[in-house]
Amino acid sequence: MTAGDIETVETQYCTIAHPPSGFLLENGESIGPVTIAYETYGSLDPNRSNAILVLHALTGDAHAAGFHNGETSHGWWHDMIGPGKAFDTDRYFVICSNVLGGCRGSTGPSSENPDTGRPYGLEFPVITIKDMVNAQKALLENLGIDSVLAVVGGSMGGMQALQWVVSYPEKVASAILIATTSEHTPQQIAFNEVGRQAIMADPNWNNGDYYGRDLPDKGLSVARMIGHITYMSDDSMNEKFGRRVKDKKNLFKFSPEFEVEGYLHYRGYNFINRFDPNSYLYITKAVDSFSLANGKPLHKLLEGVKTRLLIIAFSSDWLYPPYQSQQIVKACKMAGNNATYCELRSNYGHDAFLVEFEEQTYLYTHFLKKVHDEQQAA
Amino acid sequence: MTAGDIETVETQYCTIAHPPSGFLLENGESIGPVTIAYETYGSLDPNRSNAILVLHALTGDAHAAGFHNGETSHGWWHDMIGPGKAFDTDRYFVICSNVLGGCRGSTGPSSENPDTGRPYGLEFPVITIKDMVNAQKALLENLGIDSVLAVVGGSMGGMQALQWVVSYPEKVASAILIATTSEHTPQQIAFNEVGRQAIMADPNWNNGDYYGRDLPDKGLSVARMIGHITYMSDDSMNEKFGRRVKDKKNLFKFSPEFEVEGYLHYRGYNFINRFDPNSYLYITKAVDSFSLANGKPLHKLLEGVKTRLLIIAFSSDWLYPPYQSQQIVKACKMAGNNATYCELRSNYGHDAFLVEFEEQTYLYTHFLKKVHDEQQAA
Repeated sequence: MTAGDIETVETQYCTIAHPPSGFLLENGESIGPVTIAYETYGSLDPNRSNAILVLHALTGDAHAAGFHNGETSHGWWHDMIGPGKAFDTDRYFVICSNVLGGCRGSTGPSSENPDTGRPYGLEFPVITIKDMVNAQKALLENLGIDSVLAVVGGSMGGMQALQWVVSYPEKVASAILIATTSEHTPQQIAFNEVGRQAIMADPNWNNGDYYGRDLPDKGLSVARMIGHITYMSDDSMNEKFGRRVKDKKNLFKFSPEFEVEGYLHYRGYNFINRFDPNSYLYITKAVDSFSLANGKPLHKLLEGVKTRLLIIAFSSDWLYPPYQSQQIVKACKMAGNNATYCELRSNYGHDAFLVEFEEQTYLYTHFLKKVHDEQQAA
Repeated sequence: MTAGDIETVETQYCTIAHPPSGFLLENGESIGPVTIAYETYGSLDPNRSNAILVLHALTGDAHAAGFHNGETSHGWWHDMIGPGKAFDTDRYFVICSNVLGGCRGSTGPSSENPDTGRPYGLEFPVITIKDMVNAQKALLENLGIDSVLAVVGGSMGGMQALQWVVSYPEKVASAILIATTSEHTPQQIAFNEVGRQAIMADPNWNNGDYYGRDLPDKGLSVARMIGHITYMSDDSMNEKFGRRVKDKKNLFKFSPEFEVEGYLHYRGYNFINRFDPNSYLYITKAVDSFSLANGKPLHKLLEGVKTRLLIIAFSSDWLYPPYQSQQIVKACKMAGNNATYCELRSNYGHDAFLVEFEEQTYLYTHFLKKVHDEQQAA
């Protein structure tokens, strides 16, 4: 079978909770209405058993594959989702939803606060990875899907996938956890905290109340630049940029001189066009507060879990280093779970899960086929 | 012999260049007057052959050992410099100078521009590692010292030491290069560039013209926080902070919640009291532009060099990883230099050269004794 591409898609919206009861958060507060943006690819089979939930990373969104009408750039995992691809839309019904707290169609700090008629800003409640997962569960229920063949995600998406396994093991036949962790380390917290400080240091941030005014674009840009350094590796930056000079006129000035500087500026300054600074604060805080076992032994949380797990790390990923994936694998094995681990060699650092398609495709294709076949036989 | 401590010291100042001729920079410009702040420990021997020049890192200063009158905190390498210590002031005359472009007594962007009577700000010329070395050479000449037993430095100090070896090999009998590199990589440039962007994004920066007004303290603080993350290791942060919570009240808020966040805030917000933001721009730019061989084979620059070299790296240093020290060692060996390499195991990351004293003391004591004995015998 030759792999084909998803063509035009539209983001859909599902309101999963309405006032006054609203959506109950881990911190005890309720909010409503809560809308979740999502996209689907492929078709749900008659017995609703072929759904795969794809979970995005920090700044991702529901648009995982295909093209939006009139746009030329495709979704963020286009090469992995489609007919004959790793997440084969001839076999599976793939769903990708934007997280709660986000700014790409799901309810978040830039949404209207029904109590004030104005955007929430810092009135938005703090959310967690578990809240994101509960919102996804509500979305699936709204779509009439009781359980999924697989939950799949890289980075923050992998944290959600792991949270799914622990919170609702009976709802997920399998999980693919990619370049992720069971809890954020102080170094990971520190990088995020510096990004948050950069946003909050921007006077335009105005304590989160900037909607309809000048945006804290410089602060968000610095935060994004820090992020990009951590997503790449020393090697991949060397290969991509070396010490090549972008603009000789800028030599000995404080404007971008090296290509790597120009790249970071471009990535940083464009980010304001697609991401809400307050969402960046809320979502980074959600990953920083993520500690699945919270000091207890992780394997205790995994006891009795029947979900089949595939855990993937990349050799040059120093933001979510392989040892963090290995900690999950160890806990799975101590709990007697069905878990497989693969460390893929790559120079791309943390970004590898978004660019290294070939080996991921082999691994996920066979893993999903096995799970699917088992489920069909059961 | 029992190691003793340097007691009260005073920073001294030497004006190495006066208008109109001034001090000639690598970019062809001249500035003057140029003053260099320095401290000395121990005594110069009658034949002026026992001087050791200690070179500081990015945010260091001339105050390497002992106490300033009325102060309780000692110099930055106090445990390494003193009677019976690695840099034994009973034997050697140790000199530490603040770099050109700095803000701790040496001429830099916060100094008065004689053309305007106001601080230079961005009128200060861009300076290089080579300019710093030439200023140190002028300082030594003013002190009546023609050549030194050793140049020693970690991080940016190591770059200066290496530049000394290449520029003035006949003036340095030996060099100790610690946790350093022969050129900045794109990743190293990228971290510095984000720090610079954070400073320049602060409206108080005002294009470098903030003296006597509100300082760009928030921007400098973010830059310093980024720096601190890169100076530590994943492991050392885990050991020091774990996921311990600083203030439970701050849980689910955007103020420091974790201890690691509190530490970064403390380090960041105190930095404004001792460092000039424009100096941070100029000095980071100097290290980013540092590429000793500039694309040519490094060993060609080291041919015929008689300087004895000791090159030290730390296992967990990911900012200046051991491979960069090994590249220097390889070039030395290809050039037939007398060079020794030691990689020290440490969890402290790049900071290790400022905290791991025991092994460094053994290594430097024996190395310096050998060089000193050889020189006495010659």
